[in-house]
Amino acid sequence: MPEYKAPLRDIRFAMQELLDFDKHYQNLPGGEDASLDMVEAILEEAGKFAAQELSPLNQTGDKGCTLTDAGVIAPEGFKEAYARYIEGGWSGLAQDPEFGGQGLPESLATIVAEINGTANWSWTMYPGLSHGAMVTLETHATEALRDTYLPPLVEGRWTGTMCLTEPQAGSDLGLLRTKAEPNDDGSYSVTGTKIFISAGEHDMSENILHIVLARLPDAPAGTKGISLFLVPRYNVNEDGSLGEANSVKAGSIEHKMGIHGNATCVMNFDGARGFLLGEPNRGLACMFTFMNNARLFIAQQGICHAELSYQGALAYAKDRLQMRSLRGPAQPEKGADPIIVHPDVRRMLLTQKAYAEGGRAFTYLCAQLVDLAQKAEDEAERKRAEDRLALLIPIAKGFLTEAGVEAASLGVQVFGGHGYIAEWGMEQILRDSRIAPIYEGTNGIQALDLLGRKVMGSQGELLEGFIGEVMGFVDANRDNPEAGALLAELERQIKRWGDLTRQIAGSIQQDPASLGSACFDYLMYSGYTVLAYIWAQSAVKAQQALAAGSSETAFYQSKLATARFYFRRILPRNEGLAVSMADSAETLLSLEEEAFSF
Amino acid sequence: MPEYKAPLRDIRFAMQELLDFDKHYQNLPGGEDASLDMVEAILEEAGKFAAQELSPLNQTGDKGCTLTDAGVIAPEGFKEAYARYIEGGWSGLAQDPEFGGQGLPESLATIVAEINGTANWSWTMYPGLSHGAMVTLETHATEALRDTYLPPLVEGRWTGTMCLTEPQAGSDLGLLRTKAEPNDDGSYSVTGTKIFISAGEHDMSENILHIVLARLPDAPAGTKGISLFLVPRYNVNEDGSLGEANSVKAGSIEHKMGIHGNATCVMNFDGARGFLLGEPNRGLACMFTFMNNARLFIAQQGICHAELSYQGALAYAKDRLQMRSLRGPAQPEKGADPIIVHPDVRRMLLTQKAYAEGGRAFTYLCAQLVDLAQKAEDEAERKRAEDRLALLIPIAKGFLTEAGVEAASLGVQVFGGHGYIAEWGMEQILRDSRIAPIYEGTNGIQALDLLGRKVMGSQGELLEGFIGEVMGFVDANRDNPEAGALLAELERQIKRWGDLTRQIAGSIQQDPASLGSACFDYLMYSGYTVLAYIWAQSAVKAQQALAAGSSETAFYQSKLATARFYFRRILPRNEGLAVSMADSAETLLSLEEEAFSF
Repeated sequence: MPEYKAPLRDIRFAMQELLDFDKHYQNLPGGEDASLDMVEAILEEAGKFAAQELSPLNQTGDKGCTLTDAGVIAPEGFKEAYARYIEGGWSGLAQDPEFGGQGLPESLATIVAEINGTANWSWTMYPGLSHGAMVTLETHATEALRDTYLPPLVEGRWTGTMCLTEPQAGSDLGLLRTKAEPNDDGSYSVTGTKIFISAGEHDMSENILHIVLARLPDAPAGTKGISLFLVPRYNVNEDGSLGEANSVKAGSIEHKMGIHGNATCVMNFDGARGFLLGEPNRGLACMFTFMNNARLFIAQQGICHAELSYQGALAYAKDRLQMRSLRGPAQPEKGADPIIVHPDVRRMLLTQKAYAEGGRAFTYLCAQLVDLAQKAEDEAERKRAEDRLALLIPIAKGFLTEAGVEAASLGVQVFGGHGYIAEWGMEQILRDSRIAPIYEGTNGIQALDLLGRKVMGSQGELLEGFIGEVMGFVDANRDNPEAGALLAELERQIKRWGDLTRQIAGSIQQDPASLGSACFDYLMYSGYTVLAYIWAQSAVKAQQALAAGSSETAFYQSKLATARFYFRRILPRNEGLAVSMADSAETLLSLEEEAFSF
Repeated sequence: MPEYKAPLRDIRFAMQELLDFDKHYQNLPGGEDASLDMVEAILEEAGKFAAQELSPLNQTGDKGCTLTDAGVIAPEGFKEAYARYIEGGWSGLAQDPEFGGQGLPESLATIVAEINGTANWSWTMYPGLSHGAMVTLETHATEALRDTYLPPLVEGRWTGTMCLTEPQAGSDLGLLRTKAEPNDDGSYSVTGTKIFISAGEHDMSENILHIVLARLPDAPAGTKGISLFLVPRYNVNEDGSLGEANSVKAGSIEHKMGIHGNATCVMNFDGARGFLLGEPNRGLACMFTFMNNARLFIAQQGICHAELSYQGALAYAKDRLQMRSLRGPAQPEKGADPIIVHPDVRRMLLTQKAYAEGGRAFTYLCAQLVDLAQKAEDEAERKRAEDRLALLIPIAKGFLTEAGVEAASLGVQVFGGHGYIAEWGMEQILRDSRIAPIYEGTNGIQALDLLGRKVMGSQGELLEGFIGEVMGFVDANRDNPEAGALLAELERQIKRWGDLTRQIAGSIQQDPASLGSACFDYLMYSGYTVLAYIWAQSAVKAQQALAAGSSETAFYQSKLATARFYFRRILPRNEGLAVSMADSAETLLSLEEEAFSF
C-alpha cells in the first residue's frame, strides 16, 4: 500500500492560486478566522495526522469489521485513531460554536476530509457520516433535540449514520416501508430493515445517531409520505447521559468488494424509539438539504483514490526496471531503464495526475460554492452559488467517481502482475474506488439529475450561466502565450455543449425517453469539459507565475505539461460522446425485453 | 453468482452462420470427424458440464486455495470436478491420437474452453495451463520425453504450468536469472524463483509438469541466453510411474484481487531435475510457438466475463423493480417498473451484449485461423492464416480483455449497491476479470506488439491484407437494406485506420518514441474497428436470414438491433482515439521525471 504524503503544494495551488480561497474566506461571514496562516497550519497538521495515524491503517483495515454479540467492532487501530482525531479537535472543525464546533468554513473541513480520505477512505467515512448527521440535526431538529444530541456529535464522542436504503427501495426511495408509529410522549416507534448502512455500527464512539427515513401511519404512498427521524443506538437521558440500548442493531455486516474497513450494516429497527426531524412527510426534502455536501464528499472519493493510486504508481514507475527507452538506454549502467521512460506508462501516470489534480480543483470550486450558498451575506449571491452548485454537483459526483475508478485501475496496470497482488495495495484502491459510482445516487441517477432536473428543469438557464463564465474566461485569456491553443479548444467544446443541449432538448420534446438515452454520455461530456476549464485555468495561472519570474519553474512547467496532456489525450473522448449522446433513444428501446438473450 | 447457461444459439450463430465452421472442418486435414452433429453434441455436453459441474464452484472457489505441508490444496470440489472432466474425455479433445488425444480440431477445444471458462474461469485455468504444456512438449520435446510425459498429460492425470516470470523479470524476460546446470546424465539441475505461476501447485492431478525458462551456464545475457526446460513435480521412472518428489515446490500462494480459485504460486526450484526442450538458448522462440494460442485463451477471458456478467445483469434488470419508465408506467399493476425499461440500464446491458457476442465471433475467427495455421494442407494458406493471426491476436488479447473489464464493471453497476456485495457474485466477476489486461503480456505489451512488430514490422502489409478483406466485404454488401448505413461507417473507419497508420509511421521515423506514444490508443481503435467488422457481418447475415423467411425473427432482429447499438453508441469512441493517437510523443515525454510530483 502506497505510503500517503499529502500533496500540500498542489492543494495550495488549487486553493490559493486558482480559487483565491484567502479572499473568499475574508469575505465570508464567519470565515475571518480562516486566515492564510491558520489554513496553512491546519493543512500541515491534517497532512501529518493522515500520514501518521490513518495511512498505516488503510491496508490492515482491509481485513474488515467483526460482528460480535456486543455489536460490530471496527478494524484494529480504527478506534484509537478516532480518539486522537477527537483529541485533535478535528470533529467539529466547521460546526457552529454554539454546539462546540470551531466555526471554520465548511470548505476547510471538506479539504481536510480529502486529506484523510486519501490516506484511508474507509476510516474517513465514519466522521463523514457523522458530518451528515450534524448538518441534518442543525437544520431540522427541534431546539431541545439539538441541545441534547448535537454537542456530543460535534465533539465526536457520538457518531452518525444515514439510514435510507431498504431491500426493495434503492434508487426508488418512494418504495420504502419502514414504519414510525407515534408514542404518547411525542416520540415514535420505528420498525423496519435498512440495508447498506455505512458506519452502521462500530465500537469507535459511545453512541450512534441514526438518521432514518420512515413512514408515519396513513402517510401517502410514494415519496410524499416519507418522514425523517432521529434514532439513537442508546437512549439518552434528560441529563445527556446514556440510558438503555434502543431496539436497533446491526443484523449483519455486508461482505463487499472493498471499503472493508467501514462497517456496512443491515440495521434492524424493532420498535426503536425515535424523534421526528422536520415536518411530517417532508423527510426527502429534509434529506436533500445536505445532498450537495454528501455528493461532494463522494466526488472527493474519486480524487482520493486517483491521488493515492498515482502516488503508488509513480513511485513504482521510477523504481521498477524493465526494458529500454525507445529513444535509447536512459540508464545504460543498469540492466534496464525505469519504466517511467516508457511513453505508455507515462500515458497512464499522466491520466491519473490530470484527474487527481484537476479533480481536486473541481471539488474545491464546489466547496467554495457550498460556503457561499450557506453563508454569503447577500441573498442573490447565495442563490447564484446554489444554482451553480446544482449544476456542478451531479457532474462532480458522476464524472469524478468514474475518473477515480479509471485512475485506480491504471494504477494496478502500471504495477503489472504486482498490481493484482494484495500485498502492494494497488488492487485494494481499485476495489475501494468501485463503490463511488454506486452510492449516494448511482451515476445513472446523477446523469438524470444533471440533464433532467438541472439543465432541462432550468430551461437551460443553469448551463447558460456557466457557459457564460467559461466564455468570459476564454475571452479574457485568448492571447495567453501558453494557453492560447487550449482556450480555442475549450471554446469549441463549450459551444458544442450548448448546441448538444439544445439538440437533446428537442429530442426530449419528441420522446421523453431521450432524456434517459442521452444522459450518461451527457454527464461524461460535461465532466470532461469542466475539467478542461479547470486545466485551462491552471495553464493560465502557471504561465502567469512563470512570466512573473517564479522560482518554482518545475512545478509550473508540470502544470502546463499536464494541461497539454489533458487537452490532447483525454479531452478528445468528447468527440465520441458528442456523437453517441445525440443518437436516438430507439437504438436502446427498440429491442424487446425477451430478445436480449436466447 | 449468476447461474451460467451456455449461449448455444449464439455460439452456433458465430460458428456456423458467420464463420461456416462446418465447411472449415470438412476442408481441414484431420477435421473430418468434426461433423455438424458431432460439434453440436460436444457443445451440448460442454454446456451441461459447465452448468452442472463448474458453475456451482465459481463462487465457492473464491474462498481460495490453501498451502499445507503436503502442498497446495485447490478449493473444495475443484478436484472432483476435474476428475469428471477427465472421465468425460475432455482433456485431450484436440490432442494428437498418438498420445491419447481425440484429434479434433484445436478450435473446438477453444470453444469448449470458453464455455467452461464462463462458468468458472479459475477452474478452467488448470486445464488451460496443461494445454500450453501439451503444445510445448508436442513441438519441442525429444521423442523419449514425449513418449513418457505426453500421454498422462493428454489424459489429464498430470497437469502443466508455464514458469516464466521472476521478481525482477516480468515484461522484460531478458532479465531472468534462474539457472540450469547440466548433470552427467543429460538432465539439468534448475535453480531459481519463479513468481505468479498460475496453477503452480494443487491437489487435482498426480503430477505437475513445469515448463521453465532458465539460463544455461555461460549463456549470453538478455533474451538470447534463455533456454526451456521440463521440470516435473515428481520425478518419473522409466516405466512412467512416479518416483520421488523433485526439488520444486510452492513457497507461497499469492493473495490476489481475484481468480482466487486458481493457485498463483511462488515456485522455488532448488536444483530440481529437468530436461531441455528444444535448442539451447532458443527458449523464448520455443515459448512463442504457442503464444498465439495462449493469448487467444486470455482474449477469451474477456468474453467469458462479459457473458457471465451480462447473464447476471440481464436477469436482475428484468426482476428488479425501481422507478417508472420515462414513457409512462410499463407495469402499472406493480409498484414500479423493472429497471430494464430504463434507457441507461439498456445502454449498459447492450454494451455487455455487444462485447460478449461480437467478441465471441472475434475469438472464433482467431481460432479458425489457428486451425489453418497449424493444419492447412497448402503452405501458402498456412502462411496467410499465420499472418492474419499475427495481426489479430494482439488486438483480440488487448481489446477484448479491456472490454471484459468494462463489461464486468457495468454488470456491477446494473445491480447498484447489490453489485458491490459479494453475495451476488457480480463483484467477483469484476475482480476475476481485472487480471486479463495484465497477464500473458500486459496490454501495453500487446499494443507495442501490434503497432511495432506486426504493423510496422510488416511495412503495413499485414494490415493492408486485412483492410482489403474488409473492403471486399463492404463492396459486396453495400446495398444491403439493413446493413447499408453500417457498412458506410465501417468503410470510413477502415480507411481512417490505414490513414492513421501511415501518419504514425511517419512520426516513428522522426522519433522512435512515437511508437510507444500511439500504440495503446491504436490498439483500442483497432479493436473497435475489428468488432465493427464482426457486427457488420452479423447484421448482413441476420438480414439475409430474415429475408430468407427464417422463423427466428426475434433472434435475428436482436442481432440487427445490437449491431446498430454498437455502431451508434460504442464505435464513436474511435473519434477520440483517432485524435489522441496522432498526438506527438512530446506530450508524454516532455515532463521531467522529477516534475511528476511536488
